[in-house]
Amino acid sequence: MIHPVILCGGSGTRLWPLSRVDKPKPFLPLVGKRSLFEQTLDRCVNEVIFAAPTIVTVEKHLDHVEGQLGEAAGASIIVEPMGKNTAPAIALAALRLPEDAIMLVCPSDHYIKDTAAFVSAAETASALADQGFLVSFGIKATSPETGYGYIKRGEELGVGFAVERFVEKPDLATAQSFLADGSYSWNGGIFAFKAEVFLTELANHCPQMMDALRASVEAGSKDGQRFHPDASSFAQIESDSIDYAVMETTERAAMVPVSMGWSDIGNWDALREAQNGDALGNSIKGQAELVDCTNVMIHSDGPRVSVVGLDDVIIVVDGNDVLVTTAAGTQKVGTLKGAKSQ
Amino acid sequence: MIHPVILCGGSGTRLWPLSRVDKPKPFLPLVGKRSLFEQTLDRCVNEVIFAAPTIVTVEKHLDHVEGQLGEAAGASIIVEPMGKNTAPAIALAALRLPEDAIMLVCPSDHYIKDTAAFVSAAETASALADQGFLVSFGIKATSPETGYGYIKRGEELGVGFAVERFVEKPDLATAQSFLADGSYSWNGGIFAFKAEVFLTELANHCPQMMDALRASVEAGSKDGQRFHPDASSFAQIESDSIDYAVMETTERAAMVPVSMGWSDIGNWDALREAQNGDALGNSIKGQAELVDCTNVMIHSDGPRVSVVGLDDVIIVVDGNDVLVTTAAGTQKVGTLKGAKSQ
Repeated sequence: MIHPVILCGGSGTRLWPLSRVDKPKPFLPLVGKRSLFEQTLDRCVNEVIFAAPTIVTVEKHLDHVEGQLGEAAGASIIVEPMGKNTAPAIALAALRLPEDAIMLVCPSDHYIKDTAAFVSAAETASALADQGFLVSFGIKATSPETGYGYIKRGEELGVGFAVERFVEKPDLATAQSFLADGSYSWNGGIFAFKAEVFLTELANHCPQMMDALRASVEAGSKDGQRFHPDASSFAQIESDSIDYAVMETTERAAMVPVSMGWSDIGNWDALREAQNGDALGNSIKGQAELVDCTNVMIHSDGPRVSVVGLDDVIIVVDGNDVLVTTAAGTQKVGTLKGAKSQ
Repeated sequence: MIHPVILCGGSGTRLWPLSRVDKPKPFLPLVGKRSLFEQTLDRCVNEVIFAAPTIVTVEKHLDHVEGQLGEAAGASIIVEPMGKNTAPAIALAALRLPEDAIMLVCPSDHYIKDTAAFVSAAETASALADQGFLVSFGIKATSPETGYGYIKRGEELGVGFAVERFVEKPDLATAQSFLADGSYSWNGGIFAFKAEVFLTELANHCPQMMDALRASVEAGSKDGQRFHPDASSFAQIESDSIDYAVMETTERAAMVPVSMGWSDIGNWDALREAQNGDALGNSIKGQAELVDCTNVMIHSDGPRVSVVGLDDVIIVVDGNDVLVTTAAGTQKVGTLKGAKSQ
């Protein structure tokens, strides 16, 4: 059995004004009618392959998590006292699961089009994890993205590959060379490993974090399906990502290549690509009329949006905010006053 | 003395969603803080030159007119029972004014930047009107507009010129040849003539209209500063413009050339041009943030508008409508469902 561990921590600014501090991205129905969090849960519903999920979240998102969790039988929720990035979040789940549990760590704010490919890769990763590897999903790179980390694959391991190295977000020329090379994949933040293997590695590289985590779990309290780690111990932890704390340093890193229509929906342009536009490339959520428009995305929570003559533009109406941006401009949305002043 | 006659009749769709049936263009503060109607009144406040104004409007605009009329001492309001285009509207004013009054007919929904040039042209036109001419303001053409009628000037009349001919809205090639020729001006819908001269011409060309108008005024009623023509007589009139009914047929047409920063604010692009943008060509009414934008006009009645990376685009937020259009697209705004379904 694979134990899904679903991370519902952060909240970004790049999908402002739709995604806001009090209405974060995982809980929005950005593609289709179900939220990204719900779709993440849906992908791991298969009684033969998957155990009940463990959700790691923070207090302020708890209402969203419980509101959308629905029928996921036997689900556990770990409520972090505060966000400390991914390494502590995953370690909390590892400490609460059986030592030999195979964990599948999934961000809750990504979109995956091809569930069958995801499940197949999860099974492959699980087999490698069972052999003691710490496995990354290596997302097939389809463009020279500079916003993602990359994974260079090494020798074959029967199923999957060893990792030759992890690469930080590259510049465009480097990203283009990676794409041409073919042995680099995007690091999509999806991982599989045995709980005890992860904890051993984390203890090796970050012994102080590990001590604080154990203390926090020992002094924690259970409340129905929720588990609350002790806040005073947890507060002492230094924030760190799983990539820095474990994946880039371990000698047991492996990767499974996968092509599954993945997107991190990292900005409005990425969302537009994930949505299937009409024949002219336009996609509309809400009430809108488009005249002489191509590749225009509208997202309105109420007002009617009428557009004439535009190409490659994204228009979002949400509450008391209207955003109008070119596709290229979506990179700068997080720097807008509205996005920063939340 | 010149008697200003200010026409507040129609309501267009090309400035939708700001201008709506119940909030028509003359009464909106489109350029500066005063409405176009208020600015029209302001231009004719000069006790040496101008008598008190006569405003011709329709029932549904009466509240707007009286609300904005303010201190205009001695103003008269003629309330048409229904809109019948400009010829009957002007004739009503002519019938209510002294026979020898020199009328200066002004639309209330145009913008004029240079009041001194306007007043100077009004005085010149008045002198010609006093000699029995029907005088058009000939607005100096500054671009090959296809949306305006043109006036070709003929022989000099000491002050001003005879009119050689009026020309309907031309195609682009014709408009370009007019601009190159230099003897064509735009017909801005501003006219000066003696009341009795206008009425004589109208009676010659449209005797039936004239009979109905006289009956309507005779059976009309006064109510303070308002005059209500009799509706049953007025209803029999066929709609007609002053251009068709009088100006294009009279042999006493004259014109006064004028360059006064005139615009009919005929669409959103014209409004953008009338407004003085900043160094990047951007102009903002309401709360907005522009990043990497040039020649962008924002008009918001409340919501904050954030824009990234656009050039030459107009964004209007009004009530439950958002309009986003290229400058070229503004010609099609009147065809949008929102504009048509009012």
